[in-house]
Amino acid sequence: MADSVHLMLDQVHALAVDALIVNGFSGRQARAIADTVTAAERDHCTSHGLFRIAFYLNALNNPDVDPTAVPVVSELAPAVVHVDGGRGFAPLALEMGTPPLIEKAKQQGIAALCLNNIYHVAALWPEVERIAEQGLVAFAFTAALPYMAPAGGTRPLYGTNPMAFAWPRMGHPPMVFDQASSVTARGEIQLRLRDGKRIPKGWAIDPDGVPTTDPEAALKGAQLPFGGHKGAAIALMVELLAGALVGDLFSFEAASNDTGTGAPLGGEFLLAIDPGRCVKDGDRENQLAHAEKLFAKILEQEGTRLPSDRRFAARKRTPKEGIRIPRSLHQTLVAYTGES
Amino acid sequence: MADSVHLMLDQVHALAVDALIVNGFSGRQARAIADTVTAAERDHCTSHGLFRIAFYLNALNNPDVDPTAVPVVSELAPAVVHVDGGRGFAPLALEMGTPPLIEKAKQQGIAALCLNNIYHVAALWPEVERIAEQGLVAFAFTAALPYMAPAGGTRPLYGTNPMAFAWPRMGHPPMVFDQASSVTARGEIQLRLRDGKRIPKGWAIDPDGVPTTDPEAALKGAQLPFGGHKGAAIALMVELLAGALVGDLFSFEAASNDTGTGAPLGGEFLLAIDPGRCVKDGDRENQLAHAEKLFAKILEQEGTRLPSDRRFAARKRTPKEGIRIPRSLHQTLVAYTGES
Repeated sequence: MADSVHLMLDQVHALAVDALIVNGFSGRQARAIADTVTAAERDHCTSHGLFRIAFYLNALNNPDVDPTAVPVVSELAPAVVHVDGGRGFAPLALEMGTPPLIEKAKQQGIAALCLNNIYHVAALWPEVERIAEQGLVAFAFTAALPYMAPAGGTRPLYGTNPMAFAWPRMGHPPMVFDQASSVTARGEIQLRLRDGKRIPKGWAIDPDGVPTTDPEAALKGAQLPFGGHKGAAIALMVELLAGALVGDLFSFEAASNDTGTGAPLGGEFLLAIDPGRCVKDGDRENQLAHAEKLFAKILEQEGTRLPSDRRFAARKRTPKEGIRIPRSLHQTLVAYTGES
Repeated sequence: MADSVHLMLDQVHALAVDALIVNGFSGRQARAIADTVTAAERDHCTSHGLFRIAFYLNALNNPDVDPTAVPVVSELAPAVVHVDGGRGFAPLALEMGTPPLIEKAKQQGIAALCLNNIYHVAALWPEVERIAEQGLVAFAFTAALPYMAPAGGTRPLYGTNPMAFAWPRMGHPPMVFDQASSVTARGEIQLRLRDGKRIPKGWAIDPDGVPTTDPEAALKGAQLPFGGHKGAAIALMVELLAGALVGDLFSFEAASNDTGTGAPLGGEFLLAIDPGRCVKDGDRENQLAHAEKLFAKILEQEGTRLPSDRRFAARKRTPKEGIRIPRSLHQTLVAYTGES
């Protein structure tokens, strides 16, 4: 284990906060980012863990990014909350927008949260999971940089546009999925390029629109949506929700603002629904118990699992056992803090 | 053209109404169903046109179905409308629930419509398109009979669970998609069985969970979701929204209530969002104009089209030109009316 370093989760959090604050982040922006990074390490979701700190620091090369932004929360309608992220990062804007979203959803039965002017380089599951932990059903949508071709097209236009959904469970973390509209994450193609490997058929097309297994041609061309035109339709929906609906940029517009830092400026759209307000004489416990019958039916089939169950399994161990990160990553992070 | 019969759209509507009323449907149930059937014929969406009347009549073999049901509309929360369909069919319940849904969405910014106790054998695009024609963004979700395996599983559990989405456009019908969570419609497999053809790989597995190209084995086994586990996650989401959230049946529960008529009893969940309430100093026209820029970017790539553009192209001609249906279908419908 000489190639890795053991950390408890509070050490993960402190390391993330230090690396961010030393480099100009406000304490609030840094702590909100560290919360999502720590949640990812806790769940063995390493691509969104401490590895991601470099993305936040790299984003500072764009002079438009404000690492000390103080998001502004307001009400747009009785069931709509707005957060202007002030060109800071998504985690603090979400942290501030979520409590009023939850309050409105419980009052009105359903509510929306519209975020603008944020840089989003994190996963979406933390935000929907947090809402579902309060007993509500949640959706989140955000666009990104143009990496994916529209249905029938050959040139990149849509982001890998993730959509996340969470369903609350009693005595158990929520049922959560968070999935890109593309067949695969861009990072999977980049990893294969680094390792000199081919990519599977169906992941991407080259700049001429021809299916390719060459990762370099794929990155210059366009990624493909999952499930053909159906995944492309979902990517289009996400562009409309996180772009035109909340008055923010489409992926192709974010690209022209990006200065090569890979952190796209844009919007995010979330929904929260109170199950207890969606039935007569609402009894939320009955509804959640009903959902458990479906989950049991899924799990009685061999080979199945519920989305996110791997994350939750990791979570049972890591608060006591801590996690391990590569020594090289640890050295990089310590260097960021200026203490090396 | 001796094998087909020409009808104007008002004749389509009258034929549908007659066939339904003569067989015991109330005028209101019949007219609401005829509206969706006529819209489908108008859009050359023949599988949901007059062909579908037989499904409604066949459903009457189930003594639980009430072809004269009067849906009851109520408010569950400031932003949630409820319709109890009274074991009638979806179209009338939707017709009655949509105006209060739209009103609430405009008041609150966003609103939900929860439907129970309906038999839904129609497409979802008519309901989301109707909402988007009033300037709102719309979603619809409904479950069905258990035809599809969960991710990693081998036995049918989920319906082919469609999800529909509509975005309003100025001076143009809305951008609409309505897509099953399965790779293909069940009818496509049934057609190939009838014609003695194989089905493509990837559509289904046989009762042992082995991929099959035999349509008979596929119908006895399970259909597969589009895009693998990502499409399965969407099917699971639809089960939760149209089942547990609105207090109605999952697909596997609807199956045990169905008496072989193929019309599943269940729920439906719809959302409507007012774009003008999702931005500061809301100007809906700006947002819709912004979306047009994305649509233009899609269409400037060769080989692309927007979802539903084929339907809208047909719609430009059929109100003047009418439509043609197979003579055998026309004879069946006339026989239903008792006038043959």
